[in-house]
Amino acid sequence: MNKGRVEAFTDAVIAIVMTIMVLEFKTPEQPTFSALAENSSYLAAYLISFLFIGVAWYNHHYMFTLTKRVTKKIYWLNNLWLLSMSLLPVATAWAGRFITKPQPELFYFLIFVLWAVAYVVLSHAIIAANQSKHPEVSAKIGRMLVYRLHTSWWFWLVTLAMAALVLLVWPPLSLVFTVIELIIMAVFTTTDSDQVA
Amino acid sequence: MNKGRVEAFTDAVIAIVMTIMVLEFKTPEQPTFSALAENSSYLAAYLISFLFIGVAWYNHHYMFTLTKRVTKKIYWLNNLWLLSMSLLPVATAWAGRFITKPQPELFYFLIFVLWAVAYVVLSHAIIAANQSKHPEVSAKIGRMLVYRLHTSWWFWLVTLAMAALVLLVWPPLSLVFTVIELIIMAVFTTTDSDQVA
Amino acid sequence: MNKGRVEAFTDAVIAIVMTIMVLEFKTPEQPTFSALAENSSYLAAYLISFLFIGVAWYNHHYMFTLTKRVTKKIYWLNNLWLLSMSLLPVATAWAGRFITKPQPELFYFLIFVLWAVAYVVLSHAIIAANQSKHPEVSAKIGRMLVYRLHTSWWFWLVTLAMAALVLLVWPPLSLVFTVIELIIMAVFTTTDSDQVA
Amino acid sequence: MNKGRVEAFTDAVIAIVMTIMVLEFKTPEQPTFSALAENSSYLAAYLISFLFIGVAWYNHHYMFTLTKRVTKKIYWLNNLWLLSMSLLPVATAWAGRFITKPQPELFYFLIFVLWAVAYVVLSHAIIAANQSKHPEVSAKIGRMLVYRLHTSWWFWLVTLAMAALVLLVWPPLSLVFTVIELIIMAVFTTTDSDQVA
Repeated sequence: MNKGRVEAFTDAVIAIVMTIMVLEFKTPEQPTFSALAENSSYLAAYLISFLFIGVAWYNHHYMFTLTKRVTKKIYWLNNLWLLSMSLLPVATAWAGRFITKPQPELFYFLIFVLWAVAYVVLSHAIIAANQSKHPEVSAKIGRMLVYRLHTSWWFWLVTLAMAALVLLVWPPLSLVFTVIELIIMAVFTTTDSDQVA
Repeated sequence: MNKGRVEAFTDAVIAIVMTIMVLEFKTPEQPTFSALAENSSYLAAYLISFLFIGVAWYNHHYMFTLTKRVTKKIYWLNNLWLLSMSLLPVATAWAGRFITKPQPELFYFLIFVLWAVAYVVLSHAIIAANQSKHPEVSAKIGRMLVYRLHTSWWFWLVTLAMAALVLLVWPPLSLVFTVIELIIMAVFTTTDSDQVA
Repeated sequence: MNKGRVEAFTDAVIAIVMTIMVLEFKTPEQPTFSALAENSSYLAAYLISFLFIGVAWYNHHYMFTLTKRVTKKIYWLNNLWLLSMSLLPVATAWAGRFITKPQPELFYFLIFVLWAVAYVVLSHAIIAANQSKHPEVSAKIGRMLVYRLHTSWWFWLVTLAMAALVLLVWPPLSLVFTVIELIIMAVFTTTDSDQVA
Repeated sequence: MNKGRVEAFTDAVIAIVMTIMVLEFKTPEQPTFSALAENSSYLAAYLISFLFIGVAWYNHHYMFTLTKRVTKKIYWLNNLWLLSMSLLPVATAWAGRFITKPQPELFYFLIFVLWAVAYVVLSHAIIAANQSKHPEVSAKIGRMLVYRLHTSWWFWLVTLAMAALVLLVWPPLSLVFTVIELIIMAVFTTTDSDQVA
């Protein structure tokens, strides 16, 4: 397929998802800082989701810059990945509104897991599509931290433990863990990750 | 016309239509899963429309990658096609809110029919514009399932029968049929459909 | 300036303006066609604005495909033109809600006039920027109907007369005249208008 | 990184931020000009933010057209800059609604300061990334008014004085100063600023 057009479509969807979340900020009803401060727990959730989208875009950019082919299968798995991200605004709004409650935080976490699974399945398809003629591309994608992390059994074990902690101890921990994981994924990228073009 | 710019404009409109539908998810008023579950019938409608847009984009991508010319007529028929898709969010919201009622399901179905007709008329124009100098392009577009389906009399006969069934029997059937048709269109594409670039 | 990037930015703004208008459709509160029909006057206004944007984009596409230079002046006049279009959603919503009242129809008309003036000023700047080195580009842009129409004294005389008619006789005439004018601009384009790329 | 894709993503976000602000215009409840006029203080704030985004885009365009490299650091600082702009709609809505009150005007001003700081940090990173192999690029970016202004101690001194004035004298002054500064940044650009492509 026309890789540039798939990328442009993907970028438009991601950019709109990112900015739709801005609509959830309520214009304060009063001209006071305390009225503005009512948005502060949403602001926290917004910042995390902004970071989330930044990490997602970066890894998608790397993977699509490398791939030599975009098949119909990759197209549909890319759509699945976009679908998981399109649910981020509602998860962010809910988690931001009830930042200390377990259900909204678990829902946010679930969307994150869906996204991670969609990402891994998409990576698999890209690796498979390049394996025979461009094994070096497949190897590079297989070395990405975001891929190795989400295909390791201990990661999902930790994730389950986290989900239990969130439920039983203190729900906002969910967002704390998410931030830590996002920062790890943002920092530990393969060395050539911004050299591709 | 500048094909790349028409494609980019089309993609922006489609991406926004897709993400506008996300705004219809209501942030639950309570931090409980039962409050979240109030969105579930809308979620069903959203997933179908997401699939719809994925199928629409895929076929548009194929047709526009092949065509050698974009005439003024093609431009305006493309706008008509975009117009039909721009009505999808309101149809989705209505059908999602009243998933068991006949009128909203029929309206959704009507938008789908409008889209199919606009698609056929657009395809015709692209086939005609390439016929003299690039007959192979016209032939390929004429072989697309989405084109053959929507230009066959039996398809429209089945469609009418479905509409009657929906009215008389069980309205959600409308969405079931739509999903089946979308999956057929997603699966049975011509073999080279993702080889063009 | 990087013409492609200015075009892409312009297209994104226009595509969003077009789709923002979709948000004004209210999901019917009841599953009945009469509830849906409450949107019908807005639908009329929406269709006109959709046509409006289609005409605007087409002419912009022609002008920007031809121009060899995008100066800072052109950039800012292009922004002014986008600003006039960004006010279209509110004008459309108001005119659609009160389709028989003079003030909303006059406001819609005013936005149209603003757009026409911004377009002429933008065209002037593009003509001037190409005059010395690419006189054929300037000549082509000067021959566009949308340019000649909006720089003729009799057009503005007719426009004033229309505005008076709208006020005194029957406000929806405003939309009727707008549609007629848009269709004329859509049909009578210069012959090569879709040959440029 | 793929510079074109980072630019396209940035443009999409900026275009959406710009048009999201349109949603804050309320469709007048009555068909009278006095009902329309209730939007007038928001209109003032909207025009200023539109100008703001025009200036921001112009300078970003210049800087990204020149840079030969987009590193991971530049990518993330670009995201930070986008984040500051994504908060503009809520600042504009609040400042437009309470145009004579100090808190909303200060908040708008604060977002402006955040944006300026993010811009300077982004410029620094771009200058550093080009220094060794393309010193002429670094030199050009260092000569931009928007960079020199926001890295001078007297500018921030004046800014602080302005903030105090706003608090103590007449809050709308904040918007007046912002407009003056934006016009200065729009007018006094380096001579070649629209020659790059």
